[in-house]
Amino acid sequence: MRTSIATVSLSGSLTEKLTAAARAGFDGVEIFENDLLTSPLTPEEIRARCADLGLGIELYQPMRDIEAVPAEVFARNLRRARHKFALMERLGADTVLVCSSVSPLATDDDGLAAGQLSELADLARDFGIRVAYEALAWGRHVSTWDHAWRIVEAAGHPALGTCLDSFHILSRSSGPKGLEGIEDIPGEKIFFLQLADAPLLGMDVLQWSRHHRCFPGQGGFDIAGLVKHVLRTGYDGPLSLEVFNDVFRQAEAGPTAVDARRSLLILQEEAGIRALPAPASPTGVAFAELVTHDAEPVAALLTGLGFVRTARHRGKPVELWEQGEARVLVNTGPAARRDGTTLTAIGLESPDPAAAARRAEALLAPVLPRRRAAEDAPLDAVAAPDGTELFLCATNRPGLPDWRADFVDVPHTPAAPAAPHAPVGVRIDHVALTQPWHQFDEAVLFHRGVLGLDAQESVDVADPYGLLRSRAVTNADGSVRFPLTVGAAPGDDTAQARHIALATADVVAAARRFTEAGGRLLPVPANYYDDLEARFEFAEGELETYRELGILYDRDAHGVFRHCYTHTVGRVFFELVQRDGGYRGYGAVNAPVRLAAQHTAR
Amino acid sequence: MRTSIATVSLSGSLTEKLTAAARAGFDGVEIFENDLLTSPLTPEEIRARCADLGLGIELYQPMRDIEAVPAEVFARNLRRARHKFALMERLGADTVLVCSSVSPLATDDDGLAAGQLSELADLARDFGIRVAYEALAWGRHVSTWDHAWRIVEAAGHPALGTCLDSFHILSRSSGPKGLEGIEDIPGEKIFFLQLADAPLLGMDVLQWSRHHRCFPGQGGFDIAGLVKHVLRTGYDGPLSLEVFNDVFRQAEAGPTAVDARRSLLILQEEAGIRALPAPASPTGVAFAELVTHDAEPVAALLTGLGFVRTARHRGKPVELWEQGEARVLVNTGPAARRDGTTLTAIGLESPDPAAAARRAEALLAPVLPRRRAAEDAPLDAVAAPDGTELFLCATNRPGLPDWRADFVDVPHTPAAPAAPHAPVGVRIDHVALTQPWHQFDEAVLFHRGVLGLDAQESVDVADPYGLLRSRAVTNADGSVRFPLTVGAAPGDDTAQARHIALATADVVAAARRFTEAGGRLLPVPANYYDDLEARFEFAEGELETYRELGILYDRDAHGVFRHCYTHTVGRVFFELVQRDGGYRGYGAVNAPVRLAAQHTAR
Repeated sequence: MRTSIATVSLSGSLTEKLTAAARAGFDGVEIFENDLLTSPLTPEEIRARCADLGLGIELYQPMRDIEAVPAEVFARNLRRARHKFALMERLGADTVLVCSSVSPLATDDDGLAAGQLSELADLARDFGIRVAYEALAWGRHVSTWDHAWRIVEAAGHPALGTCLDSFHILSRSSGPKGLEGIEDIPGEKIFFLQLADAPLLGMDVLQWSRHHRCFPGQGGFDIAGLVKHVLRTGYDGPLSLEVFNDVFRQAEAGPTAVDARRSLLILQEEAGIRALPAPASPTGVAFAELVTHDAEPVAALLTGLGFVRTARHRGKPVELWEQGEARVLVNTGPAARRDGTTLTAIGLESPDPAAAARRAEALLAPVLPRRRAAEDAPLDAVAAPDGTELFLCATNRPGLPDWRADFVDVPHTPAAPAAPHAPVGVRIDHVALTQPWHQFDEAVLFHRGVLGLDAQESVDVADPYGLLRSRAVTNADGSVRFPLTVGAAPGDDTAQARHIALATADVVAAARRFTEAGGRLLPVPANYYDDLEARFEFAEGELETYRELGILYDRDAHGVFRHCYTHTVGRVFFELVQRDGGYRGYGAVNAPVRLAAQHTAR
Repeated sequence: MRTSIATVSLSGSLTEKLTAAARAGFDGVEIFENDLLTSPLTPEEIRARCADLGLGIELYQPMRDIEAVPAEVFARNLRRARHKFALMERLGADTVLVCSSVSPLATDDDGLAAGQLSELADLARDFGIRVAYEALAWGRHVSTWDHAWRIVEAAGHPALGTCLDSFHILSRSSGPKGLEGIEDIPGEKIFFLQLADAPLLGMDVLQWSRHHRCFPGQGGFDIAGLVKHVLRTGYDGPLSLEVFNDVFRQAEAGPTAVDARRSLLILQEEAGIRALPAPASPTGVAFAELVTHDAEPVAALLTGLGFVRTARHRGKPVELWEQGEARVLVNTGPAARRDGTTLTAIGLESPDPAAAARRAEALLAPVLPRRRAAEDAPLDAVAAPDGTELFLCATNRPGLPDWRADFVDVPHTPAAPAAPHAPVGVRIDHVALTQPWHQFDEAVLFHRGVLGLDAQESVDVADPYGLLRSRAVTNADGSVRFPLTVGAAPGDDTAQARHIALATADVVAAARRFTEAGGRLLPVPANYYDDLEARFEFAEGELETYRELGILYDRDAHGVFRHCYTHTVGRVFFELVQRDGGYRGYGAVNAPVRLAAQHTAR
């Protein structure tokens, strides 16, 4: 099916929008009137630009407050329509959107509405134009899809059909009939299908629509279910995104358009009308990679945590540090930035790296060129929306190339003999990936759709200098967990540091070993422990141990979580975590304490 | 009355919050539990810090999910309460907030609630503490002020009273009785009064409360009316602000605290419990002042617009340009910034400059030191929240010192003889003052409360790179108009330029004269005029004139507005406007066209 996007969904000038839509692979656009009015290009120039870019102009939008009005008002409306139809002729657009009236002049008279829409369609036909009539959820008298359809049906005019909009339909009850009633509309009378998702907010529907729409799969609506109903009618027009969103208005058009088209691809897969390479969900974290211009502070931190430098890449300035199943690469290559150590890449254990890469590529994730030497193992890598490199790889799995093969062992002393309570089975519990503020929904959809991870509930976290929003994506057994976090608004840098959480069976022993090795754990205020004492009962001495070491504590219906943090190096820090009894979270209740302590420690 | 603010209303660490509250002149604070838990200070140190700063600790907040629960749960709650009361003893806080339960374990049993709250109050009394019970608007069984009061009354315990919160009361219907029913509560049983305003949003009340509260006078609630009811009970506790707001969480604590305290001062005046110097609303704009490091481009622009350089300040590098009643000062003094010409000050015609300054000072507006020579006229000036200097002054009015007296005439040729259609009676129609994103509500309240201007409705304006919000403040006869505008989020610089709009009786003649003098008007796309033609009917040739010159057009119920824009110099541009028939707006419908054209022209 053709895919399309409304220009109002993207930021910038009309030409920027068109360029972004074309580059992301859309087949067409809806041109929003204001984008044309504010453009220095003539309609003919816009038409030519679209043609050059391979974009069809699927819809011109919108006309408002047309129908069910007094005769003299309708006469003015027809005059206005004639101008717009002439414009559309110049533009080469053959479908116009007419929204149900919100005018106080409109009367609740379906017959009058049908008659006037027929007159409008008569005029449109003279210009070779079709009129697509849509029920706004807040229309004065017509606010449901089935009401709009009854009026179109009653008019019985060949140039008049209906436009279905998922937001207007799903944001309210769908009238007397369920959504399956959509299947009774003849497909050729559905002139257009506009798609938008939205988070399930209990708020005024107009404000909800104007500011909080998002791309399919980023909100709470069952868009795929709706699309299936529409397709059963025989509808063969485009799937077109019409998203009003305050964030997209400010974000760059190029990435937004890619995000948009990815959402449509995933939607088509869900609706059963497009085959994509199947997801190959990662089964673990092979490694996390830090880039730094000075390896020394990172090396000291890793050593303190019990990591041992075991190998180096045979052709690049990359060292491998290991502890149990946890692996960290330290890269001092040319990507190192002066502003300190950053977490730039993650190795994902993939059951089928090549298939995972094919899916990522089909879903518009840039496949990364690897500067490989001829003898290096093949390594598939794609870029996440924020630029993080995701390596789809295998560690010591028969039949698959091993990324480890590119590393040569270096002489090393095995880790010091384990103390009685030394951590065993250390592995990466989660990697917290802070995101650019405008890519939060995009990042969640990417990790869900491209990697096949599940998204957990979004939580708000109070930082002393702003509210953060966090949402974790995980695989089924919890062996891959990425909490994604953003500040509430651009310019907020309070949550920019990323971190690697190491799972240990005994966080107290691990913390103790770290401090005895000279490591500094983040100091936690005494008031926090007084509060813990008020909230929970502890065994003799238990709380004192936590207090001494700076270990935070949480409990949910499933189990207990104990965790502590190292100091920050550049823009990276580590966490030690112990999960017991199936605890599922990340200690969100303790996050404000951690964030405040990190501000204090600066 | 004492004034207080909850620490959750300000950003930063607890010590930053306390310092900001004290500097703004608050008498006390409510300490929000998380601010204490995340602080490295002990309760004793916090107590000492507050004492040093002259702040009382008016409330510790909150305790949750205490009452109407099964016995074993309540036993745990009492255990927790004992810890918190011990903490409050260390802190020196004698009132604790208990919010009505939202727990699924709570039962709808007022008798049980009253009994358990009495037990809690018994325990509290042992620590010298009072319990203030408050109905959350989303409480599970208790959600109205009168229900909470009935339970408190039934308990009949001396250490148990109620806390009234304006948001919880005004965000929902107030139960069976109207608000005057509050006056039936004995004042000594109202242990606390929390105040927050909010914009009237149709949304889920919990989300509304957590993210959109604002200071009194910045939203849509009648806070003064509520306060009057409460005061009639004999309540003599503090007026305390408890505002959860995503913007304040990110803004600097110092200015937020000043904004907060100013709102309480204005509220007290409205409620009739504090006398402030009466407002002396400005009656006109005496001048606008531009600061620049290079006067040449500004001079060329002013000359093109018909301004003549008539005088210079006798002691400073400031020149006066005049045209009719419009005056612009061009300052090349040390405040000039490298990043270009900026609009930094406005002269307001004041009926009583000294009184206006006294009111501003009483409302915490910094009074600006004037580096004056002994012979200069006295000149009162205060700083608006964004740093704009506001001179409260008089132009050629008998009995008042004239700011013009500090200027000495320079030889000049009067403006060229007026062409037949030359503008007459040019004056400043409005000055558009873009604001820092986090000071929008503060700026509106400042201009209302300090200057006595009226605030018009807020409108959204679509810029190509983000949504802007604009709200005008004006005096009664429209001779002072300041549209205040912000971008939707920090980091958005699309609306940073300010502008001076010059009122003319004939915008076509003025625009023509400007272009004939070599001036460049902002080009407006042809598509805009095609749309005007569709929307309105024009006299023969009228539209062609607008199209030729780049004049924008709007019409409302009262009249017609025609306007055009100069190019931008630094961060300043000019607008020529013609208002006919009582048009009240600022051409907001055309703002997206202007903004897009300005982006294109860059």
